Amino acid sequence: MIQNIYDNPAFFAGYSALRATRAGLNEALEQPAMASLLPDVAGLAVLDLGCGAGDLCRQLHAAGAVGVTGVDVSSRMLNLARAAGGDGIRYVHQAIEDFDAPDASFDLVVSSLAFHYVRDFEAALAGIARWLRPGGTLVFSQEHPVCTAAQGTHPGWARDERGAKRYWTLDRYHDEGMRESHWFVDGVIKYHRTTATILNALLDQGFRIQRVLEPHAVPEEEARRPELLEERRRPPFLLVKAELPRA
Amino acid sequence: MIQNIYDNPAFFAGYSALRATRAGLNEALEQPAMASLLPDVAGLAVLDLGCGAGDLCRQLHAAGAVGVTGVDVSSRMLNLARAAGGDGIRYVHQAIEDFDAPDASFDLVVSSLAFHYVRDFEAALAGIARWLRPGGTLVFSQEHPVCTAAQGTHPGWARDERGAKRYWTLDRYHDEGMRESHWFVDGVIKYHRTTATILNALLDQGFRIQRVLEPHAVPEEEARRPELLEERRRPPFLLVKAELPRA
Repeated sequence: MIQNIYDNPAFFAGYSALRATRAGLNEALEQPAMASLLPDVAGLAVLDLGCGAGDLCRQLHAAGAVGVTGVDVSSRMLNLARAAGGDGIRYVHQAIEDFDAPDASFDLVVSSLAFHYVRDFEAALAGIARWLRPGGTLVFSQEHPVCTAAQGTHPGWARDERGAKRYWTLDRYHDEGMRESHWFVDGVIKYHRTTATILNALLDQGFRIQRVLEPHAVPEEEARRPELLEERRRPPFLLVKAELPRA
Repeated sequence: MIQNIYDNPAFFAGYSALRATRAGLNEALEQPAMASLLPDVAGLAVLDLGCGAGDLCRQLHAAGAVGVTGVDVSSRMLNLARAAGGDGIRYVHQAIEDFDAPDASFDLVVSSLAFHYVRDFEAALAGIARWLRPGGTLVFSQEHPVCTAAQGTHPGWARDERGAKRYWTLDRYHDEGMRESHWFVDGVIKYHRTTATILNALLDQGFRIQRVLEPHAVPEEEARRPELLEERRRPPFLLVKAELPRA
């Protein structure tokens, strides 16, 4: 089953409010890390899997990507994306699992915080490896496996009597598969995979790993929002840059 | 400062007793995982960094490695190694940090559970990249970063009133550097690095990552020793196989 939680009205309202504040972790950690991994996209055909409201698509388009395709399962998010403009960006209303493209039709595939929603990661990677040209690049981020591992059964942060964070609770690391958790609404479905499973799945599809990031916030953001220092205590995100060999 | 904790009599006694029972995690998790990553060593010149009592050196020698060099800082461990025989294995009494070898003099470098004792991992990797021939392979294991992260300041497993394991305590993940902990004796010094730091240090030295393992016990061992199922709750070890490109 492919869940479309971003079209749930209560989830969408909560998620939109968080993004509007720009006070979440995405803006302070994930987006700078993603930007640091992107190649010069001028002239590249780019596919964005799980494009949401299209921020990354617009950024890539503005940076000179000649063809940008954004794929998302949520019509609400795609409505936001289309309303934000960006002539020449093609938006496809489809689950990542259902999307298909001609072989060797993209130079770069990006995916920001979407792969933890994908049940069959190996199948998705097999598609990406086909759609990329030789020498093509994949850059993606996802929730870190130490965060997805015990999601839904553990509290995340263990806290003392006064509510202060004592440590992060890690459990069920090798118990890969579905996790059901509360994020704005009950029943948000994600899939836990270990770091080793993620990296080896890339290697099995012929990718060469070029960079692995577990970002904390950039120092300027930490200075502005000291609560971000807490994110150094456990890694919230995992990002990987990988490349297909040239033919 | 390079610590030589294996020559501490109390540590050595405790460590030797654990190994003698063959009931630790090394035998059930780390050794099978390491074996699964090793190439066919027949005819290869092999360097073992942190060889301890020489078990892996003897195994590689028996499997046809033509030259095996074992390096260890502990004379007590090397005494065990030499007493166990293995004609043609060369043992060098030196810290990993102090060892040197001619350029391109080894086909394979292995290191079992020693790199978390090495302060300057980048320098050690730079040496290994020099000592390996083009196309040469590095296979190593170390304590997993989710285990070294909060060592010395946190309990490892958080337990309930009855002593049962509730979850693993993760903290200080991005606070890389020295950790002082109790293992048989007080003051055992290790160095915490994140998974991303470890993998990127390999990439920076020109290695291609070939496999990443976070092993749990093999099923036969889990059937024989059900307590090993607990090791699925957090990864105790990280292993990496990496290769230098052929010239």
